[in-house]
Amino acid sequence: MLVDASTLDDAGVFAHGRGEVLVQTVDFFPPIVDDPYDFGCIAAANSLSDVYAMGGRPLTALALLCAPEGTLPPEVLAAVMQGGLDTMRKAATSVVGGHTVRDTELKFGYAVTGVAKRRQLLLNSGARAGDRLFLTKPLGTGILSTALKQGKLDARLTKRLSTHMATLNRAASEAAVAAGARAATDITGFGFLGHASQLADASRVTLEIRVDSRWFLPRVLELAAAGVAPGGLARNRAHYSPSIAVEGDVAPAMLDALHDPQTSGGLLVCVPERRAAAFERGLAKRRVPCLDVGRARKRGPHAVVLGAA
Amino acid sequence: MLVDASTLDDAGVFAHGRGEVLVQTVDFFPPIVDDPYDFGCIAAANSLSDVYAMGGRPLTALALLCAPEGTLPPEVLAAVMQGGLDTMRKAATSVVGGHTVRDTELKFGYAVTGVAKRRQLLLNSGARAGDRLFLTKPLGTGILSTALKQGKLDARLTKRLSTHMATLNRAASEAAVAAGARAATDITGFGFLGHASQLADASRVTLEIRVDSRWFLPRVLELAAAGVAPGGLARNRAHYSPSIAVEGDVAPAMLDALHDPQTSGGLLVCVPERRAAAFERGLAKRRVPCLDVGRARKRGPHAVVLGAA
Repeated sequence: MLVDASTLDDAGVFAHGRGEVLVQTVDFFPPIVDDPYDFGCIAAANSLSDVYAMGGRPLTALALLCAPEGTLPPEVLAAVMQGGLDTMRKAATSVVGGHTVRDTELKFGYAVTGVAKRRQLLLNSGARAGDRLFLTKPLGTGILSTALKQGKLDARLTKRLSTHMATLNRAASEAAVAAGARAATDITGFGFLGHASQLADASRVTLEIRVDSRWFLPRVLELAAAGVAPGGLARNRAHYSPSIAVEGDVAPAMLDALHDPQTSGGLLVCVPERRAAAFERGLAKRRVPCLDVGRARKRGPHAVVLGAA
Repeated sequence: MLVDASTLDDAGVFAHGRGEVLVQTVDFFPPIVDDPYDFGCIAAANSLSDVYAMGGRPLTALALLCAPEGTLPPEVLAAVMQGGLDTMRKAATSVVGGHTVRDTELKFGYAVTGVAKRRQLLLNSGARAGDRLFLTKPLGTGILSTALKQGKLDARLTKRLSTHMATLNRAASEAAVAAGARAATDITGFGFLGHASQLADASRVTLEIRVDSRWFLPRVLELAAAGVAPGGLARNRAHYSPSIAVEGDVAPAMLDALHDPQTSGGLLVCVPERRAAAFERGLAKRRVPCLDVGRARKRGPHAVVLGAA
C-alpha cells in the first residue's frame, strides 16, 4: 500500500504490476437534488472524482444502494441507477456489481477502482514553492443545495446546479496529467479552504490565494450574505480558520463561500510555473473552466494566505 | 468485463494485465450478533468470501460504515472497525480507505478487490457431469441468528456461531485452486439449495445431492423443527422449490434448513472426479471441514435432485 488515510489523499493507492497502481475510493450519500436521474448522475460523478483527483483512470465500479422498502416507487430507484450507469458510461467505467441493503432513507454511490502510472500520481504532497494553482469548477454547491431545499432556487439555476455536480472531473484530470501537474485534490466536503489547507500541509508549502467573485456559481455570494449555509459550512470554518491568514479586504460572505462543502467539486491542481500555460491550453481545449487561484510559496506560519484579487 | 451480474457469479471480474483479472465485490449489513468486535470480524469475512468463491486472492478493501450519530458509544464503533481490521489482516488484505455516512442504524462491510489468474477462476458455470461436490462449512447460521435474537441460544453456541461466521473461506479457496477445482460458489443469502440451483443452471447440469444431519450446526434441525426461521428462509423456499426434486425421505425441518440464508457460509466446490482425493487431502491439511455432498450429472428437468444419505 502506497497511500492510505494517514496522508489525507483522495483515494487509497496500492502497487500492482510494473509501475502501475490501483487507485480506489468509495462514496455514497442521500439525495441532494429532487430528480432521481440527476441524483444518480451526481452520485456517480462524485464517486469517480477521487480517482481523477489522483490522476487515475477509473476501470470498474461497484454500486452501493441503501433503499427504503416499499415506500419508493420502483421507477424512482430505476432512474437513480440509470443516471449512475449513464455517467459511468461517459467515464468508460464498467459497473461490475453492487449491493443493496434496506434502509429508512435512500442512499446511493459507488466503490470505484482505477489505475494510474505510479510516477504520474497526483498526490496532495507534490506541491513545491513557486508552483501555480488552478481550480477547474466554480464553487457554491453546498449553499445552492441548501437554497434549493429552502425553495429559493428557480428551475434554471436548479438545473445548472445538477449539471455542475454531474460533470466529470475526467477532462480536468487528463489535462493535469498531460501537462505534468505536480499535485491535485478534488474540492468536496471540507470546502475550498479545507482542501487547500490539507494540500498545503501535506506538501509543506503555503498557498497564496487571490479570490474574486468569478469563482462562484450564480447567486452563491448573495445567498451566503443572506445567511444561507449548509451545516457543514460552520464546521469547516471552525476547523480550518486557524490555518488561514486573511490579508486585505475579503467580504465575510465570500469567506463563508470558500468554506462551503462541495459535492462533486472541481480539482485544485498544482502545476510547475513552466507548465502552467500548457495546462491552461489543455483545459481550454477540453472546455474545462480554468480559474487561476494563486501559487505555492515557501511554508510560512499559515497553510493558506488569502487575499482579494 | 468478463463476468457481471447477468451470470449469477459471486463477484465482478475485469480483465487487467496479462492473464490476470480483478475480482471485485461489495457487501455490508446490520449487526447479526451483539458483540461489536465479532460483528466486525464477520462483516469482513463475509465481504471477502465472494473473492475466495471465485478463486481470487484479495488485495485491498474499502470500509463502508453507516453509523447513527450520537447514539452509539465511540468504543462500539471502534470495536467494529478493529474486528474488521484484524480479520482483513488474517486475509493479508490492505484496508486502503473507506466512507462513513450517518444513518438511523449501524451497518458495516467492505468493497473488496482481489486478483486471480484468468484460467484458474472458479465460475458458477464450470461444473461438468461426473464432477464431485463438496461443502466447506456446515449450515444453519440464519436459523441460529434468529434463535439468538429470540434469546434461545446459550453463550457457548453463540460464540460457536460467531466463530463460524468469522472464519475465512481463504483456506478452502486455496485448496480448491490447488486441486484444480472446476467451479465454486459461496453459500449466502439464497441458502444451500438456492446457490446450488444457480450453479447447476449456470453450468447446465443437475446436482445430485445426498443430505445428512452432519451438514448442520448444533441445534439447527431441532430449531427448524420448532419453527425458528429468518424471514429470508420462506422466500428462498418459495423461489427455489420448483427447481428442486426431492427423492426419498427428507424431513421437512431438514429441507427448511437447506433453504436457510447463510451469512459468511462455506464454499460449494465442484471438482473433477480424478482430483477429488487431492482436494479432500488439501482441505484436511488446512483443517477445513469437508462435507461430501454429491455429484453433478447430465442436466435433467430439475437443477437439483435431493435425497437422504
